Amino acid sequence: MDFAFVQVPAKATVQVVRDCAAKGIKLAVLFTAGFGESENEWGKELEEELVNVARQSGVRLLGPNCMGVYCPAVRLTFGPDFPVESGPVGAFCQSGGNAHQLVYSGGHRGMRFSQVISYGNAIDINEAELMEYFAQDQETRVIIAYIEGVKEGRRFYQALKAAAQAKPVIVFKGGQTIAGAAAALSHTGSLVGSNELWGGLIKQAGAIQAYNIDECVDIALALLFMRPPGGRRVAVFGNGGGATVQSADDCYRAGLVLPAIPADIRDELKEFIPVAGNIFRNPLDIGGIFDKPNEISSTVRSVGKWTGVDSLIFNAGIGLAGDYMVEFNLLKPNVEAFISTTKEVDKSAAVVVHAVYSDQGYRGFSQLRQTCADAGMPFYPSVQHAANAIDKVIRYYQGRGSPL
Amino acid sequence: MDFAFVQVPAKATVQVVRDCAAKGIKLAVLFTAGFGESENEWGKELEEELVNVARQSGVRLLGPNCMGVYCPAVRLTFGPDFPVESGPVGAFCQSGGNAHQLVYSGGHRGMRFSQVISYGNAIDINEAELMEYFAQDQETRVIIAYIEGVKEGRRFYQALKAAAQAKPVIVFKGGQTIAGAAAALSHTGSLVGSNELWGGLIKQAGAIQAYNIDECVDIALALLFMRPPGGRRVAVFGNGGGATVQSADDCYRAGLVLPAIPADIRDELKEFIPVAGNIFRNPLDIGGIFDKPNEISSTVRSVGKWTGVDSLIFNAGIGLAGDYMVEFNLLKPNVEAFISTTKEVDKSAAVVVHAVYSDQGYRGFSQLRQTCADAGMPFYPSVQHAANAIDKVIRYYQGRGSPL
Repeated sequence: MDFAFVQVPAKATVQVVRDCAAKGIKLAVLFTAGFGESENEWGKELEEELVNVARQSGVRLLGPNCMGVYCPAVRLTFGPDFPVESGPVGAFCQSGGNAHQLVYSGGHRGMRFSQVISYGNAIDINEAELMEYFAQDQETRVIIAYIEGVKEGRRFYQALKAAAQAKPVIVFKGGQTIAGAAAALSHTGSLVGSNELWGGLIKQAGAIQAYNIDECVDIALALLFMRPPGGRRVAVFGNGGGATVQSADDCYRAGLVLPAIPADIRDELKEFIPVAGNIFRNPLDIGGIFDKPNEISSTVRSVGKWTGVDSLIFNAGIGLAGDYMVEFNLLKPNVEAFISTTKEVDKSAAVVVHAVYSDQGYRGFSQLRQTCADAGMPFYPSVQHAANAIDKVIRYYQGRGSPL
Repeated sequence: MDFAFVQVPAKATVQVVRDCAAKGIKLAVLFTAGFGESENEWGKELEEELVNVARQSGVRLLGPNCMGVYCPAVRLTFGPDFPVESGPVGAFCQSGGNAHQLVYSGGHRGMRFSQVISYGNAIDINEAELMEYFAQDQETRVIIAYIEGVKEGRRFYQALKAAAQAKPVIVFKGGQTIAGAAAALSHTGSLVGSNELWGGLIKQAGAIQAYNIDECVDIALALLFMRPPGGRRVAVFGNGGGATVQSADDCYRAGLVLPAIPADIRDELKEFIPVAGNIFRNPLDIGGIFDKPNEISSTVRSVGKWTGVDSLIFNAGIGLAGDYMVEFNLLKPNVEAFISTTKEVDKSAAVVVHAVYSDQGYRGFSQLRQTCADAGMPFYPSVQHAANAIDKVIRYYQGRGSPL
């Protein structure tokens, strides 16, 4: 595949498309802004002319007002620091900034992409065609779409429904409020529908709704890296009483259930976890063994053999005594012990690192994020994020009639 | 003030309290856990004995199962890396971990404390007495309380009401759900009330409710560092179309209003901001001048003189081209320009840095957070956090009948 770059003002793009046609170039990516989204009286007219020239000449247009295509397999990118490896996530974003954020946010947590397409004003290639493309693309196992407005409503809905039949589709609809809709009009010239309408359509199509880019990543990681949860019952392993109470509230609010740990397992745990200062309920507060990875493994093994729970969350908070634990490398062995032991037991699993404030704490966070990314373990910045992602994938599997 | 530390098992603490009495010591801080919160049959009995001995001997007890007192003025701390300077926030937390998190989270954003008290099982000194103390404490201008359960319901409610009359009080109630309540029982032996009950009591008392430690900090920063907003109308300055749409949705969902920028101000802005790729609505997308702090100042000056807006939010996203901007130190001058120019105009102001993923991006985040902390500018990790804090302080001021 060959690429060429030319820099021209908006009004000269029509000629560029004609030149493409003359040279047999099939796709023009129009990075240039200042078209229908701006307040130029000629912006909309120019878009119409571009589309006419393109249709007549057989050149397809991506954009204008977009960043183009990130496709690691052919070494094409719009971010100099994007991962060079390909992966199973196919994404298209009407915002180039959101496309960047998706690759950064997902990339650091181990997500890799078949393609990420920033498609801007969508005057030719639009969200319906992109959804159709990713639905049939064999390299893509999960689709993420950031959409501000829809050009072909009926076609898009059919495409969304068909795609969601084929593979999980996460839709982040920007401009759902009156204020956001006005911003979207100025951003990509999009006319948007209401939140209620979109929420209904996404649900009816069997897709998953998200409200920001990080949530798209949260959900995709659970789909890619987590074995489908057998149900809503979770066990949480953490450090600190306040964090334990918070994680219980967060799980409950996300619709997850924290069943009481049976007496025989509690007795087992008390053999190697000190009673004072720890909590033998669910969530478990096992701060007393946070410097003992073997005991972490034993805990996961004890609770993991229990048929009363479907998912295990390891909540490796950093705030309390975090700098110390990072400095002496005490947290990484815990997370590694959790990761390796969850492979022995028949459960879904996720890791949380919360309460990151100091520079030292961030280094620990970054290290544990990398450990999880390397191991294919879903990683979250709070129990709230993890619980929300687990809830959404459970709803997704239930919607498909999968046995839970 | 003198301090002494002794290490004994839970059962020996009664004798320690007797020794305190004999030596004329007035306060015993019982760090030791394994009392009423544990499942020892003797835990509750031991607490009763401790209270009896204390009452008879005149020694006051903090805890057990607590971290004690952080009081920078007398150089007393339970965290070796807590700030040494005093400040206007007085806090008491039933969880020692949450107390740590509060000092870390707030400290890095410029918040300083009169005292932070971790009070654990509250067998003697309890939340009611602590609220009474901070209400009358002249050093404390804002109170933050993390509470799992209440020992003296009527007294606490009266204290909360009186405190909220005197100064802003932020209450984070842990264990609001059935799952969280069970965890709180095991953490500090607390019997907790329902979310509905607590929500109603906090509101009726004129206090502010928060749902996690970071939100306590978000709100306290707006109370301490932000001039009280004259109303719900905000203008947002940012970089990137997707971020602009997201910030509009986030503001709207928090109940803030984004009024349209008048034509004359838009014309003024177009004199020094390129039209293509930027958005002259509200939120403003001014990515085209993100390497020009003087133009940032001019923008803030233009919009800041407008009487149609109450608060200004600078959204210095890091994700898109962030590493580059951090490496060449392009973001800090922008934030400094925003901070200094908002002092010229008659508006509330806040800074947001979102989309932080890379190590380089974190360095930029940390640097901008410090810049804001040094300048007394409230700093938030997303527009959603900033908008939520602004909404909550507006409700607080309105509840007091302050003119908005």
